[in-house]
Amino acid sequence: MTTLLISLVALAAEGVAQPPKPALAPSEIVAAAPTADWVEIAPTDLLVMTLASGKQAIIQLIPPPFSLGWVGNIRTLATARWWDGLSINRVQDNYVVQWGDASEKKALPAGLAAMGEISYETPLASPGFNPFSKKDAYAAATGFLKGWPVAASMPSPQSGKARSRSARQPSFSKFWPIHCYGMVGVGRNLSPDTGSGAELYAVIGHAPRHLDRNIAVVGRVISGIEHLSSLSRGTGALGFYEKAEERVLITSIRVASELPTSDQPRFEYLSTESKSFAAYADARANRRDAFFIRPAGGADICNIPVPVRKKI
Amino acid sequence: MTTLLISLVALAAEGVAQPPKPALAPSEIVAAAPTADWVEIAPTDLLVMTLASGKQAIIQLIPPPFSLGWVGNIRTLATARWWDGLSINRVQDNYVVQWGDASEKKALPAGLAAMGEISYETPLASPGFNPFSKKDAYAAATGFLKGWPVAASMPSPQSGKARSRSARQPSFSKFWPIHCYGMVGVGRNLSPDTGSGAELYAVIGHAPRHLDRNIAVVGRVISGIEHLSSLSRGTGALGFYEKAEERVLITSIRVASELPTSDQPRFEYLSTESKSFAAYADARANRRDAFFIRPAGGADICNIPVPVRKKI
Repeated sequence: MTTLLISLVALAAEGVAQPPKPALAPSEIVAAAPTADWVEIAPTDLLVMTLASGKQAIIQLIPPPFSLGWVGNIRTLATARWWDGLSINRVQDNYVVQWGDASEKKALPAGLAAMGEISYETPLASPGFNPFSKKDAYAAATGFLKGWPVAASMPSPQSGKARSRSARQPSFSKFWPIHCYGMVGVGRNLSPDTGSGAELYAVIGHAPRHLDRNIAVVGRVISGIEHLSSLSRGTGALGFYEKAEERVLITSIRVASELPTSDQPRFEYLSTESKSFAAYADARANRRDAFFIRPAGGADICNIPVPVRKKI
Repeated sequence: MTTLLISLVALAAEGVAQPPKPALAPSEIVAAAPTADWVEIAPTDLLVMTLASGKQAIIQLIPPPFSLGWVGNIRTLATARWWDGLSINRVQDNYVVQWGDASEKKALPAGLAAMGEISYETPLASPGFNPFSKKDAYAAATGFLKGWPVAASMPSPQSGKARSRSARQPSFSKFWPIHCYGMVGVGRNLSPDTGSGAELYAVIGHAPRHLDRNIAVVGRVISGIEHLSSLSRGTGALGFYEKAEERVLITSIRVASELPTSDQPRFEYLSTESKSFAAYADARANRRDAFFIRPAGGADICNIPVPVRKKI
């Protein structure tokens, strides 16, 4: 309702009778959000990936409590310059772009955490979770946490936790990050392997939510995804490039905090606990701006991308 | 359950104790489907789009009762060779590739139906609809009809139709096609304009379901989507190319039935009423093949792409 109210208020201020204006578009709500609703992303949470073409993609690492071991490994790998000179080896349409060591022989740096077979779900204090929808095929609920799309499960009916709560105020038990467009995950071999973080992919198609809780989500591309999503698709099985010369060379991947201050990219995201975000999410789910004739009345969590912009 | 049963039956036939085999992957179920489960697509329902590079994308037009007027117009436009020499003018990342007349001055051929402001929903006999899931943010149910992903609404509680049915056997009232990856829709100006069919787009990102019931879905790219999805993104507003020379020239768009028989592409889709499709959809929603450690227990309708293949 927020966006509708905004337009009615605007009309009242003008003090003249005229047909109701269309409500603000989601992008207009974001543009109007006050500075206080934006949260700067620490340079230690940004990776700068530079391709041989000079084009760059910037990845935000996922915050705690998600995927801690892998995210730590990724910082170690970047600091060791492990990806420099390696390549993008797989581009599968409507699925992923994947990079790492095509030879599968490059030694990993010292100091990586051994990631055993651990759960991809995390318990956490429910109050930090801002639920958005229960109409989801993959989870009891979806919502946002610290600027990220997150899914939640309910405790099983047999558990004491479930019994101690009323049906009207359910408490979620486990949480996990969602594979939306642009999300970055950790390639792995068959279970019990969970990957080290050296082999990474970014989603370039419809959200492959069947990967949720099967692979570690470690970040998201917040700038330059088009330099990955527009690459030629590989013609081998699973979209791997068949010839070495098709691979796309990676000049470097750096943690932004290791770059000279003047080269550090600065980005901020719209706080998912802000009123601006609530209005934006509502407008994404109920488009009332001029083009739309029928608001959907709901939205898939991956159709509410968290606004991220350069900090000026 | 179908795929799990298949592997247990296979084990029993072998008659030896061994660890359970992983179930078939969705692609293996499709590969094993009998010939009788495949439905050939008529050449009158296929458009062949040839780019100046020689690369081709093949579009299947949506069958009745959906979008009839626009689909008729599109056949008329192709027969009139209206798109030949025009271009792809817009590529917006995670959204659409759009083509048509950049000059907005080319006269339309005679014989196009005038598409006034009409509903994008269609009533039809429910038995033709194969429901798959009710866990959807945009519709009362999603499922399949004649090989297409389709959404359905319930009659309003006040209507006589709703009252006459029991709660256990709900009857859907209206149906509409879904904007999944690869779907083709009709560009339009602000309502009441609904577009003629001359300006078209294909989805190259996460399903933009907020467009459902706001724009006519007229087809889907069944081959060569990678030649559209890998194009350079436009840098203008909404992903339009800013310079004329960036546009991607279209050599021709033809209805396949107008091509010499030897040049006509032949494709078939897996019947969405077949047992093979039911097993495939179940396996997409519950991945039990070797890579997966945790089946999702459900799937978004756009994560169950209807299998389409060349007919040999």
